[in-house]
Amino acid sequence: MKTAVITDPEKIKDLLERDTEDIVVRESLEKKLMSGKQLRVKLGIDPTSENIHIGRAVPLRKLRAFQDLGHTAVFIVGDFTAQIGDASDKLSKRPMLSKEDVEKNMKTYKEQVGKIIDLDKAEFHHNSTWLSKLTFSEAVLLAESFSVQQMLARRNFSDRYEKGEEISLREFMYPLMQGYDSVAIDADIEIGGFDQLFNVKAGRVIQKFYGKPEQDIITLQMLEGTDGRKMSSSWGNVITINAAPEDMFGKVMSVNDELIEKYFRLCTAIPLPEIAQHMAIIKEGGNPKEVKMILAKEIVRIYHGADAAEKAQEYFTNVFTNKQAPEEAEVVEVSKGQGIGAALKNAGIVASSSEWTRLVDGGGVTYAETAEKITDSKLVATEDVYLKVGKRKFVKIKVI
Amino acid sequence: MKTAVITDPEKIKDLLERDTEDIVVRESLEKKLMSGKQLRVKLGIDPTSENIHIGRAVPLRKLRAFQDLGHTAVFIVGDFTAQIGDASDKLSKRPMLSKEDVEKNMKTYKEQVGKIIDLDKAEFHHNSTWLSKLTFSEAVLLAESFSVQQMLARRNFSDRYEKGEEISLREFMYPLMQGYDSVAIDADIEIGGFDQLFNVKAGRVIQKFYGKPEQDIITLQMLEGTDGRKMSSSWGNVITINAAPEDMFGKVMSVNDELIEKYFRLCTAIPLPEIAQHMAIIKEGGNPKEVKMILAKEIVRIYHGADAAEKAQEYFTNVFTNKQAPEEAEVVEVSKGQGIGAALKNAGIVASSSEWTRLVDGGGVTYAETAEKITDSKLVATEDVYLKVGKRKFVKIKVI
Repeated sequence: MKTAVITDPEKIKDLLERDTEDIVVRESLEKKLMSGKQLRVKLGIDPTSENIHIGRAVPLRKLRAFQDLGHTAVFIVGDFTAQIGDASDKLSKRPMLSKEDVEKNMKTYKEQVGKIIDLDKAEFHHNSTWLSKLTFSEAVLLAESFSVQQMLARRNFSDRYEKGEEISLREFMYPLMQGYDSVAIDADIEIGGFDQLFNVKAGRVIQKFYGKPEQDIITLQMLEGTDGRKMSSSWGNVITINAAPEDMFGKVMSVNDELIEKYFRLCTAIPLPEIAQHMAIIKEGGNPKEVKMILAKEIVRIYHGADAAEKAQEYFTNVFTNKQAPEEAEVVEVSKGQGIGAALKNAGIVASSSEWTRLVDGGGVTYAETAEKITDSKLVATEDVYLKVGKRKFVKIKVI
Repeated sequence: MKTAVITDPEKIKDLLERDTEDIVVRESLEKKLMSGKQLRVKLGIDPTSENIHIGRAVPLRKLRAFQDLGHTAVFIVGDFTAQIGDASDKLSKRPMLSKEDVEKNMKTYKEQVGKIIDLDKAEFHHNSTWLSKLTFSEAVLLAESFSVQQMLARRNFSDRYEKGEEISLREFMYPLMQGYDSVAIDADIEIGGFDQLFNVKAGRVIQKFYGKPEQDIITLQMLEGTDGRKMSSSWGNVITINAAPEDMFGKVMSVNDELIEKYFRLCTAIPLPEIAQHMAIIKEGGNPKEVKMILAKEIVRIYHGADAAEKAQEYFTNVFTNKQAPEEAEVVEVSKGQGIGAALKNAGIVASSSEWTRLVDGGGVTYAETAEKITDSKLVATEDVYLKVGKRKFVKIKVI
């Protein structure tokens, strides 16, 4: 895995500055990068859900950037830590996952990670390899490195503590384990998401405890969901990196206009001056949709290649821009929880329940923006959706 | 180890009421005791110092009382937990002990414990046997049973937290382990010192977690040191159970008058009505010293037998009551930190430094109250002490 290490100051500056939130310790990190030594760069992701989303891809893309400079990417699937549960990005107590949940979630992790980093040149670990061998005594020794006050000073814990919400003692043990990972793989640098500063700093404490050199740290900016809120799969504002090209394209097109520039920066490798040129179109009164098309095409290209990106754009353009403007769609009002099939039958859009079922089973009902097929004919209305029913009909379901 | 179990209600009442601070759950405990079943009664002591003192002996004596009713005493030396450090009786962070410290401390534990409980009928365990086998994962699972809030609600933690004093995360793990001990030995009942309510309750939580029946709990009253303050070897107000008879006798004689009744109750098995008779002597204007002589003789008898108790009383009477009243002793003022030998030479009590050294080496210098020998001729003055120098001289060292 020996590669020539690139020490071009401009490239290092870009690596350290683009999209980063915090660097600890900057001076030391720069020195390491300029030394020409091949560094071990750690990134861990817990498989708490089946699909890696574009927010979690931000640190993965930074890992790739280190790889591109010739350093060793050390990726850790947190199969052990996922069971414990990291409370970092949660405002409430995080449940423990079963071993089965975790195994199910991480089935395609390697493949997904391989879309971003070059697996041939990377190390790929599961942290159960070493964490399952640790003893209770070691847990206690590691615990000695932290005070209760330090733990409670973390914003997410202190908020919950002040509100009187329960914090499980188990949650306090998470940083100890993530920290131990750094010892196990001898990390020189650790990359973390925007909410990981405490956990990655724990790595420094634990490395020191074991008499090892302390890793430096980069944490990255937060990427909001398409609607501007925190990413959450339950809010449907998440783009997963293995979404189908048309779905991915449509989802990017639904990104709030205020977030276009941030999505360019955090989700693509387009150089900053070029991003500025794109954004100038909007500033000069152009249609934001036009710029989002560039963004969507680039994001689809990254994960599916140029051809798929082209086709996804065509699909989107056909459906929305040329043939059927959303304004032409029929609006059907549905009570929350009512079956969508029944509502469409009542509105005369489908002739019968059995026609509806036939259409769904044959893949003839899709979400119009993303071309994602509806597979359950018993689907009930929970939020406003925009459907394509059969070959020509477009229906806006409005929940009342 | 099968013995007939005694279910005499009077005896059970005495067992449950004499010297107890808290019982959880009383009804359940009474039912267990009345059932005639031989119960497993747990008591654990961490070897944090070499000698068991008369305060720690209080729960040990209660364990003996259970044994006398035919139940199984299960004594646990906390050799594992001693290294972690229980913060229960501390107002500040408790340091971790090394394995060597712990091994040194517990050298004579079995012998000391054997002065109180009948070892032939008891189980004697070291908790490293099972705790050293636990994994990190199990630590996390146990941690899930407790909230940070529960931990911080403990008085000693909350006091420190409010004062901004550091609490190590390691200290939060202590109750998990003490609780696991109850699982390991299948405790029906656990006895704890006055400061152990939280830890012994943890046993109930952990037993429940492992699907075992919950133990009931007895905690005992606190025994203050001889001067009325909390017992602390650094304050010299502690009586260890393997102190020499004269030393033990003298120390009991130094107990504050207000504590005589409590020492009778917590340190002897004298029935309460009889104690009341002794105390009546004081109430009717008698000399408390007279009553303390009864107390001292009984305590020495418990740990050293009747003959030794007789002799200790004689020694005390000879030194203090008959031959030399403390009033006759010469007073030598010494600066704090000054060598006692030098001060006695200056005062003309010993002829020379070498005479002093000879006297000390020959065992000719003792603490007058206790007959304890001074073994270090370089001893410096740190507090007022009363010494016997040679065969006849009594000296009060007064630190100025």
